Amino acid sequence: MKIQIINGPNLNLLGTREKEIYGDVPFEKYYKLIQEHFKDIQLDYFQSNVEGEIINKLHQVGFEYEGIILNAAGYTHTSVAIADAIKAINTPVVEVHISNVYEREDFRHDSLIAPNCMGSISGFGLDSYRLAIESIRVLK
Amino acid sequence: MKIQIINGPNLNLLGTREKEIYGDVPFEKYYKLIQEHFKDIQLDYFQSNVEGEIINKLHQVGFEYEGIILNAAGYTHTSVAIADAIKAINTPVVEVHISNVYEREDFRHDSLIAPNCMGSISGFGLDSYRLAIESIRVLK
Amino acid sequence: MKIQIINGPNLNLLGTREKEIYGDVPFEKYYKLIQEHFKDIQLDYFQSNVEGEIINKLHQVGFEYEGIILNAAGYTHTSVAIADAIKAINTPVVEVHISNVYEREDFRHDSLIAPNCMGSISGFGLDSYRLAIESIRVLK
Amino acid sequence: MKIQIINGPNLNLLGTREKEIYGDVPFEKYYKLIQEHFKDIQLDYFQSNVEGEIINKLHQVGFEYEGIILNAAGYTHTSVAIADAIKAINTPVVEVHISNVYEREDFRHDSLIAPNCMGSISGFGLDSYRLAIESIRVLK
Amino acid sequence: MKIQIINGPNLNLLGTREKEIYGDVPFEKYYKLIQEHFKDIQLDYFQSNVEGEIINKLHQVGFEYEGIILNAAGYTHTSVAIADAIKAINTPVVEVHISNVYEREDFRHDSLIAPNCMGSISGFGLDSYRLAIESIRVLK
Amino acid sequence: MKIQIINGPNLNLLGTREKEIYGDVPFEKYYKLIQEHFKDIQLDYFQSNVEGEIINKLHQVGFEYEGIILNAAGYTHTSVAIADAIKAINTPVVEVHISNVYEREDFRHDSLIAPNCMGSISGFGLDSYRLAIESIRVLK
Amino acid sequence: MKIQIINGPNLNLLGTREKEIYGDVPFEKYYKLIQEHFKDIQLDYFQSNVEGEIINKLHQVGFEYEGIILNAAGYTHTSVAIADAIKAINTPVVEVHISNVYEREDFRHDSLIAPNCMGSISGFGLDSYRLAIESIRVLK
Amino acid sequence: MKIQIINGPNLNLLGTREKEIYGDVPFEKYYKLIQEHFKDIQLDYFQSNVEGEIINKLHQVGFEYEGIILNAAGYTHTSVAIADAIKAINTPVVEVHISNVYEREDFRHDSLIAPNCMGSISGFGLDSYRLAIESIRVLK
Amino acid sequence: MKIQIINGPNLNLLGTREKEIYGDVPFEKYYKLIQEHFKDIQLDYFQSNVEGEIINKLHQVGFEYEGIILNAAGYTHTSVAIADAIKAINTPVVEVHISNVYEREDFRHDSLIAPNCMGSISGFGLDSYRLAIESIRVLK
Amino acid sequence: MKIQIINGPNLNLLGTREKEIYGDVPFEKYYKLIQEHFKDIQLDYFQSNVEGEIINKLHQVGFEYEGIILNAAGYTHTSVAIADAIKAINTPVVEVHISNVYEREDFRHDSLIAPNCMGSISGFGLDSYRLAIESIRVLK
Amino acid sequence: MKIQIINGPNLNLLGTREKEIYGDVPFEKYYKLIQEHFKDIQLDYFQSNVEGEIINKLHQVGFEYEGIILNAAGYTHTSVAIADAIKAINTPVVEVHISNVYEREDFRHDSLIAPNCMGSISGFGLDSYRLAIESIRVLK
Amino acid sequence: MKIQIINGPNLNLLGTREKEIYGDVPFEKYYKLIQEHFKDIQLDYFQSNVEGEIINKLHQVGFEYEGIILNAAGYTHTSVAIADAIKAINTPVVEVHISNVYEREDFRHDSLIAPNCMGSISGFGLDSYRLAIESIRVLK
Repeated sequence: MKIQIINGPNLNLLGTREKEIYGDVPFEKYYKLIQEHFKDIQLDYFQSNVEGEIINKLHQVGFEYEGIILNAAGYTHTSVAIADAIKAINTPVVEVHISNVYEREDFRHDSLIAPNCMGSISGFGLDSYRLAIESIRVLK
Repeated sequence: MKIQIINGPNLNLLGTREKEIYGDVPFEKYYKLIQEHFKDIQLDYFQSNVEGEIINKLHQVGFEYEGIILNAAGYTHTSVAIADAIKAINTPVVEVHISNVYEREDFRHDSLIAPNCMGSISGFGLDSYRLAIESIRVLK
Repeated sequence: MKIQIINGPNLNLLGTREKEIYGDVPFEKYYKLIQEHFKDIQLDYFQSNVEGEIINKLHQVGFEYEGIILNAAGYTHTSVAIADAIKAINTPVVEVHISNVYEREDFRHDSLIAPNCMGSISGFGLDSYRLAIESIRVLK
Repeated sequence: MKIQIINGPNLNLLGTREKEIYGDVPFEKYYKLIQEHFKDIQLDYFQSNVEGEIINKLHQVGFEYEGIILNAAGYTHTSVAIADAIKAINTPVVEVHISNVYEREDFRHDSLIAPNCMGSISGFGLDSYRLAIESIRVLK
Repeated sequence: MKIQIINGPNLNLLGTREKEIYGDVPFEKYYKLIQEHFKDIQLDYFQSNVEGEIINKLHQVGFEYEGIILNAAGYTHTSVAIADAIKAINTPVVEVHISNVYEREDFRHDSLIAPNCMGSISGFGLDSYRLAIESIRVLK
Repeated sequence: MKIQIINGPNLNLLGTREKEIYGDVPFEKYYKLIQEHFKDIQLDYFQSNVEGEIINKLHQVGFEYEGIILNAAGYTHTSVAIADAIKAINTPVVEVHISNVYEREDFRHDSLIAPNCMGSISGFGLDSYRLAIESIRVLK
Repeated sequence: MKIQIINGPNLNLLGTREKEIYGDVPFEKYYKLIQEHFKDIQLDYFQSNVEGEIINKLHQVGFEYEGIILNAAGYTHTSVAIADAIKAINTPVVEVHISNVYEREDFRHDSLIAPNCMGSISGFGLDSYRLAIESIRVLK
Repeated sequence: MKIQIINGPNLNLLGTREKEIYGDVPFEKYYKLIQEHFKDIQLDYFQSNVEGEIINKLHQVGFEYEGIILNAAGYTHTSVAIADAIKAINTPVVEVHISNVYEREDFRHDSLIAPNCMGSISGFGLDSYRLAIESIRVLK
Repeated sequence: MKIQIINGPNLNLLGTREKEIYGDVPFEKYYKLIQEHFKDIQLDYFQSNVEGEIINKLHQVGFEYEGIILNAAGYTHTSVAIADAIKAINTPVVEVHISNVYEREDFRHDSLIAPNCMGSISGFGLDSYRLAIESIRVLK
Repeated sequence: MKIQIINGPNLNLLGTREKEIYGDVPFEKYYKLIQEHFKDIQLDYFQSNVEGEIINKLHQVGFEYEGIILNAAGYTHTSVAIADAIKAINTPVVEVHISNVYEREDFRHDSLIAPNCMGSISGFGLDSYRLAIESIRVLK
Repeated sequence: MKIQIINGPNLNLLGTREKEIYGDVPFEKYYKLIQEHFKDIQLDYFQSNVEGEIINKLHQVGFEYEGIILNAAGYTHTSVAIADAIKAINTPVVEVHISNVYEREDFRHDSLIAPNCMGSISGFGLDSYRLAIESIRVLK
Repeated sequence: MKIQIINGPNLNLLGTREKEIYGDVPFEKYYKLIQEHFKDIQLDYFQSNVEGEIINKLHQVGFEYEGIILNAAGYTHTSVAIADAIKAINTPVVEVHISNVYEREDFRHDSLIAPNCMGSISGFGLDSYRLAIESIRVLK
């Protein structure tokens, strides 16, 4: 089973950036932990700050992998193009957010990509990713 | 460990109502399955169509249980009173939806209760509840 | 043939309340008149000020009766939960209003329940109920 | 007793146009049926696609007839001029729609003419007209 | 002279809930103090989390008491049905809020019930109730 | 000097219709009075309830007359086509209203045709027309 | 007969300011011309850039003069206080604008004071004032 | 092959009206040129300023011709009735505009008829019509 | 103890202006009555129609008095500058309105100054001022 | 004559993605067909999912080519930057869409780039591109 | 070279008011520092809480000085009259704010005066004034 | 001292593009001038049309440089991702615009990045950059 994790803009700074919202664990460290936890799953990881590269990655894995976990960060609220990409591929996508986006600014309440995702998990810190992997594993 | 599941209006018709959206499994049947799966957790279940009774239940368990899983259904989008109740209690609440609310009518995209919940899980069918229990168990 | 009339909040005060809008006939009196008029129909009547009890009644008769006549009064404009209940049941529901809601405040122009009802009749005073019974009898 | 039926734009295509919404009975056929059913009423019928001709007809009968049944179709949502005409005449006007306009596009939810009408009946197919005649006969 | 105090949802938690906004005095304790202070007034107290029960209470006392003091809490901003109930009864209603609702979230700035109340007092903590009793006593 | 007066929908009912707003003088009678008053001006008068006929008249006189006085009535607020016609011709158009449109419904506050008119006069009863003739006479 | 002209902010710069919109005649010069033209009328003139001084002047003449001609300029679109002052006095007020405000920025289309004025005249350059005097003289 | 061109309000003034936007060629002249260019097509032409006559023409040719080219001009943005007519007929309709409507006023950006048309071509001057004929010829 | 009453625009006309809304008692008369009633309080009174003078007065007393009672009248809904002044001073300000502003025009429902005030009292006629003095006396 | 075709995000999946909307022909195949059809034109093709690369390409050809055909796909509705790029270059740009964007979600009705394009063609499937080439060839 | 600094409402309290936003330096003190710094410039200073007096000052210096630095404070967001004054004069005006207005309440994000100013500088504390003087000096 | 200048989309065309708005000086030329002027500062320059590359650059210098000067051009109004990047780094960012964005289209009035910047300078042509450097130098 192959699952692709895709992290959007600024998530490369996790562990450094606004720790009171995002915590102090770099994603790479967390990635190793969940790789060990889900040993039967090939868990790939990709991060980019470029909207179009996220689309490229979705196209690349979206006809082959069993699931995609997408934290589109700031692009969640502005990218029709990523939303279209999710609709264009076959692999189901789970939307993930570290923080509870509803506690934050109004423009973060609206997700352009959510209507095209299978489901959405937000607010559980990095554990949101672990729950997303669970959600894909069970559905298969 | 004690977790309370609270289901809001019309969820007593699960398995009967709009099966293409909500599936054909009555919640009682699913409830038994997850009770068996999480044997170490006291998993209580409450359903009401009355907004105020949902508030009463939140008050009753909200200073004692470790977690509350709330599917407020139609009240999600209209009840300031339930949102206030979640803020008034100590137990963390996880918002749960069976369907992907973002795929549906516009008025279902806005959640009044989400800003006061710990996190939110939607779109995974009845599995949304199982993931919510996981999310509480891990955080403790 | 069984038809259920459901009256929402404050309609228990009909005949007492704002007579220039709602007239001076208590609903109980009118109810007897139409029972006599439609002798071949079992015409049941229920009133509640509690949103959830209206939902309970819709669930109770909604898989058995031939028609439901619903004047949701103030809940017409605010209750996603009642709208969901109408969608969840099998019996067709006719929306009824005593006054012409379009002549009144702006917030009364928008009906959350109308999209899920079979049809809508408003502005004919208590005769709106009689026309609604007609509408159900003909369709059967 | 004289009642005028006025049908607005595109209703001349009834029976031909979008049958899944409007049914397959031409209005002329239905008109004969209700003329027979209400033998004691002089039931006149007028259709026009021209907004101003509908106003002309309203002026012509609006100080003489006992009732007017108006299906303004597309002009329902855009014509301040027809709304003004209804207010300017003495005969009460009943607004009628074949389909449940609330199930359809958003712009069909708003009726400019409804505030000036006596009442409104929608969603009962061609039977909406029959109920409207009933509503006028009773009030007289 | 008889005055009814009606407290809406979550106000049963006063003294426990969000103390920085609502203070740490349970309403029952305060209720005793003002009963002593206004010895010439029969001061009744009712609290419910159920919208419809608040309406029931308004109907019950609304044709008999000299005044009603209503803190509708979360229902202030969402309940057309309570607003209609206030309009339907004879007793004048004074709207009361403990906190300054204008300092808080946007959705708390809009009161559906205020247009039907005699007046409105907010922001003085529990003293808002005392001022409301004064306002009724003077007007009589 | 030639000036065309154009009256829009329902103004043929002046003197009959809503007298508290529009007065009880038929326009024909007033027309004679101002013809006598402005003997040096050829004052033509046209009324139609049909939007397109108003446009036709604007085209017909709009390259020849010195001024046009237009009371577009209900079309004031809805007709992009009349607004375009005013822009397309050479003769200056003065917008006229009998009542103070700002005292009335919100949708009457917005004029689609005003931006293309030379000026606007409203609220002076039928005298609005006389002032409009003055305004054109002076500018020439 | 006494008529007061009140000019609001920046109109003291008439003849200097944005000549393509407002023309190149100082108001004082025009004022003399119309004084001569209406010799039977006591025509007073007041200009202020201070909102409150305009209110003071309205109070001062508003129970004694036969008419007030008000060009509130920028305050037209922002001053609830001037609108209230017009409502509080007895003398009828005619709203006047030099330019066609509908041709200009959107925020100039909305007049807070218009609903409380007798009528409105705009777009005729300085002649708008002359027409306003006419409108008052005729009505008396 | 039969194609009907329908031009809406004010397009009879083409070549005369606002030449900087619409050019200086009368449509009749252009019509002859394209008739010669598409000799194998019966190309009919109709213009009206009356909304309802445009609907009549759509009904008349809409079950017989292979294509309709519609420049609804000002009615593009206000006519639900024309939009309904396009939906009610069988012949595909191509929306055409001479100018780039997106460069102009905001209210011209929204087309009520576009959702019911096969396609839309705008901004190419009179050549928009030629391209529209091409688009129909190819699809057949 | 020193309390400053500040009345905004048009309140100098109290007793004269729109008596059905504001009553027929001039404020000066009422002021004497409450001075006698609260003999232990130095009760100062200031009225101005000028926004900036109200700000000046707030600055002057706002670091010295125990309380300020402000009826900003029309400036309530438009003055960011007064709102800023209230925030800039130390003395708590109580917002007061004579009428129930929620029963009136929509633009009166929104208060720019309320978020910076300690509390708000409206709808009790001139007694609103008396209750405001009470509210300050108790809090001290 | 040189014309550049630029395709935006997800259009590399044409023929694979949502075939009921976009058809089953890959763009590369269609590209060959139109190259053969327009042998006298140098027809270049570029596709990118990256907003900035589309801007780079516009800059590169925008001072040299005779025309640009741009299907900005999802960026059509969100990219001020691409709109600015079109304005910054000299070559005219024709906006093209395969589907009728007006039939689809609301956010697809608004085009940020259209105001800066020469014209717009949408709804004709891949033939939209062919018509766009025609439109450029004729104008030259 | 003559530059006028104009400070709007509440800025006379600088150094006293909300120090966490505006700092603790009175403007008079800062004024002396920059006078010394820009010895070659005649730097005048004016503060008023009255909107109309700010307009008066703009008129007075606006045809003679080389530059005006305006911190309109609360009037920035509400004063069409000050915006008109800036447009009416010849001297370029630089808008200045001490705090970053975009970090604060929503109503502070919109500036009515900005479109008529030469430029805008905000967020640099009192240094915003110094930069504004620089900006004027360089442009001359 | 190290300061990074970052220019967003289309600013590589400065000197070529829309000269009436942006002037005719290429940025490279201006860059040399200010490097000479601020000899004590290491002034780096970066331009990209790709949103994600601007984020990458912000991350790269944002924990090391003393200041960043950002002209995000079109991304100013659409990029939540760049706004998040500014919040995520330590170096203060000054927002800069060449033109007065408030004079231009409405969508340019709203800046998503401004709330996270230290301050904002716009409207002074290329001198906006020089003032921005000054603003950073002084604060250090």
